[in-house]
Amino acid sequence: MPIDPRPVPLSPTLAVNEAIVRKRREGVPVLPLGFGEAGVPIHPALVRELSAAAGRGAYGPVAGSAALRAAAAGYWSRRGLPTDPETVVCGPGSKALLFGLLLAVGGRVAVPSPSWVSYAAQATLAGHAPALVATPPGEGGVPSAALLADAVVRARAEGRPIRAVVVTLPDNPTGTLASEETVRKLCGVARDHDLLIISDEIYGDLVHDPARRVFSPARVAPERTVVTTALSKHLAAGGWRLGVARLPEGPFGRALRASLVGLASEIWSASPAPMQHAAAYAFGEPPELVAHVERSRRLHAAVTGAVADRFAAAGARVRRPEAAFYVYPDLEPLRDRLRAAHGVTTGAELTGLLLERYGVGVLPASAFGEADGVLRVRVAPTMLYGDDDDRRLEALGSPDPVSLPWIAGALDRLSGVLADLTDLTDLAAPAPGRACGAGHRTGSGHSPVAAAAS
Amino acid sequence: MPIDPRPVPLSPTLAVNEAIVRKRREGVPVLPLGFGEAGVPIHPALVRELSAAAGRGAYGPVAGSAALRAAAAGYWSRRGLPTDPETVVCGPGSKALLFGLLLAVGGRVAVPSPSWVSYAAQATLAGHAPALVATPPGEGGVPSAALLADAVVRARAEGRPIRAVVVTLPDNPTGTLASEETVRKLCGVARDHDLLIISDEIYGDLVHDPARRVFSPARVAPERTVVTTALSKHLAAGGWRLGVARLPEGPFGRALRASLVGLASEIWSASPAPMQHAAAYAFGEPPELVAHVERSRRLHAAVTGAVADRFAAAGARVRRPEAAFYVYPDLEPLRDRLRAAHGVTTGAELTGLLLERYGVGVLPASAFGEADGVLRVRVAPTMLYGDDDDRRLEALGSPDPVSLPWIAGALDRLSGVLADLTDLTDLAAPAPGRACGAGHRTGSGHSPVAAAAS
Repeated sequence: MPIDPRPVPLSPTLAVNEAIVRKRREGVPVLPLGFGEAGVPIHPALVRELSAAAGRGAYGPVAGSAALRAAAAGYWSRRGLPTDPETVVCGPGSKALLFGLLLAVGGRVAVPSPSWVSYAAQATLAGHAPALVATPPGEGGVPSAALLADAVVRARAEGRPIRAVVVTLPDNPTGTLASEETVRKLCGVARDHDLLIISDEIYGDLVHDPARRVFSPARVAPERTVVTTALSKHLAAGGWRLGVARLPEGPFGRALRASLVGLASEIWSASPAPMQHAAAYAFGEPPELVAHVERSRRLHAAVTGAVADRFAAAGARVRRPEAAFYVYPDLEPLRDRLRAAHGVTTGAELTGLLLERYGVGVLPASAFGEADGVLRVRVAPTMLYGDDDDRRLEALGSPDPVSLPWIAGALDRLSGVLADLTDLTDLAAPAPGRACGAGHRTGSGHSPVAAAAS
Repeated sequence: MPIDPRPVPLSPTLAVNEAIVRKRREGVPVLPLGFGEAGVPIHPALVRELSAAAGRGAYGPVAGSAALRAAAAGYWSRRGLPTDPETVVCGPGSKALLFGLLLAVGGRVAVPSPSWVSYAAQATLAGHAPALVATPPGEGGVPSAALLADAVVRARAEGRPIRAVVVTLPDNPTGTLASEETVRKLCGVARDHDLLIISDEIYGDLVHDPARRVFSPARVAPERTVVTTALSKHLAAGGWRLGVARLPEGPFGRALRASLVGLASEIWSASPAPMQHAAAYAFGEPPELVAHVERSRRLHAAVTGAVADRFAAAGARVRRPEAAFYVYPDLEPLRDRLRAAHGVTTGAELTGLLLERYGVGVLPASAFGEADGVLRVRVAPTMLYGDDDDRRLEALGSPDPVSLPWIAGALDRLSGVLADLTDLTDLAAPAPGRACGAGHRTGSGHSPVAAAAS
């Protein structure tokens, strides 16, 4: 055969989504908690804007329409980041823009550990395996300043210098928001070691406490910070594929912009024109969209909080999320039970068991750059909001969404799965029964819990 | 500054488009002949389909929706290429798919010379400068089989083996369609030397003679041929960003698909969901769209033919295009005049003069991989169809579009520019007057022709 195609695994978040869709199609009852989709309908006003622009067939400028760039500049300016529309570049999703930025950097980057699955994968595709740097305790998304400084010095000594650092504010997978102090320290290290900062703020409007706001590194180190965001999370339009990046002003920013726009022109030409029109409307933040985002934020807070409580009740170590729509429980306290009942010793074994035995789709910490043995899982409960738009809208409008029968039922099923997972009852039987019990459990394919909930 | 961003020039086609937009904004009368946009409105039925799907906010499968993949499979099956929907992968434009394929190949590729500007640029970004291989006389888009075989043997001896070959059927920039014999010979070389064939058939439905059809290499060498197409050209929806690839069946095809889908999942996640819905409708080829494509084809044939005639009348060497919407005249017969009147000796000097002095945007042959000294230019006359949709629709429906006043006027202006460009009258004056004449010409910024046509 002519070539040996480069082996590139499917992005784990998309892979678990597709596995869940397959299982559902096979008639297996599923609990889809793997995929980072916002889980609410796009607001009708935003849909109307896309409809109105459906006839736009021209390519338009690579960097995006003037209207969209001006609207995005206004969006950032209202968040304490005065922005010249000339520094804004639009792309088909912020994922594509991040890949373009990593190609433009053309060198090694540091990424937080844990962090979103695609930073490390993209960096590797762009030619340089990243340096993984742990985050401070309780704060995800921003590498610990001291550890980053160490990594930079070490990498330079090894002849593989680090050129940039990626941060996520607020964070996926941990659902936390790094403090101003942590961000300031990170910026200090970036200045000392002359690093570009790429700040992925796609969950920026989904901080659960409305009084808390993201403190962007662009506030402290504007000369070296790129900020990205998109319509995918707070406006639930992931399927539209539209993101924006805000680049630094000045000669360096202009050179970076020229490189990014050049790469964009060769990789994706331009972003979808109808979506650009709708995005210009969205970044203008009309009151109906602001209210919609506020309702989504409350829904995400309520359900992720309830999920965290269920994990805590089952004996996991877990923080209540502060932002976004993820929970990141650690099943370390249950390690002995998991090993005894199922022979599980790694995160991937744990999530594989959850998927195959219970139809529960979650991702292991290893997908986010943590060690294989870590028993944390990322839980994304947004798909529980409803199977159709009527239910999703009801969840969005409900003062107490976790009491809605389909959400309460899913949460109860999750509790049942967790109880069954760590249940050692069968193991109390004598040794032969033990093996038999384990065989019975994995042999059926469906657990009693999964069957009951179907 | 933290990093030295990778220098990536803007894709020349997009760059000339943006230069023309800037000039127009400055009030300079322009003749925009640089950009490969279809120049006709999207059919209302297709717009309606996008509108109907505007609310689709979910990401969906990386490879594309089942409905779109089935429709694309049907489209190819009706063209003599029976297609399993499982072998179809959708992307945000066929440009992004081509980049993904080059990354999946992970080695050096051969591209025709001349050929579309982005193949070579993408190959370089993917890590390997391409081998440029000349096409047979009068047939663009497919490297000469003998020259390709030579290049492959030489490259292997140099330790930089060629893994794949890109072909364009029909061709951009030449507007020609390679013959079945040429395609068969190319496939023979690909088999002999075990090359992957990437066949870009985005202009496949725009062969001017309805009795002639593209002969795809996938007919002869299905085990090693990937075919790409999109909505951008025959359906005029470039701004929608939606393309599809048809991969080989069998183990090699499956490995290539896994690699491409993995890359897609990390670079662009998925293609815009509303566009996928509309594309499924489009690839179903309902009669109203088939008729629309037929009308576009006639319009492209009429106007490109007329443009070719104008260049021929001005003394250029030029073929009447057989497909797509490009003319590729060679001003070599006018070389002495161009040098005497303007000091022009390269293609880029020629197109620079045309843009700055006359507001005429065309691309030099060097942008398509030909030598700097070649005086060919690529002319894309689709922007002349009209400045608004009323005119474009009138052009589309006209039995004789070149007689419409705005198209006839633009063609006359083109003739005027070409006459002025090669006019040596001023040069008949004595030596001092000569320099003065040249100074007067370039000093005004607007030529008399451009001013008259404004």
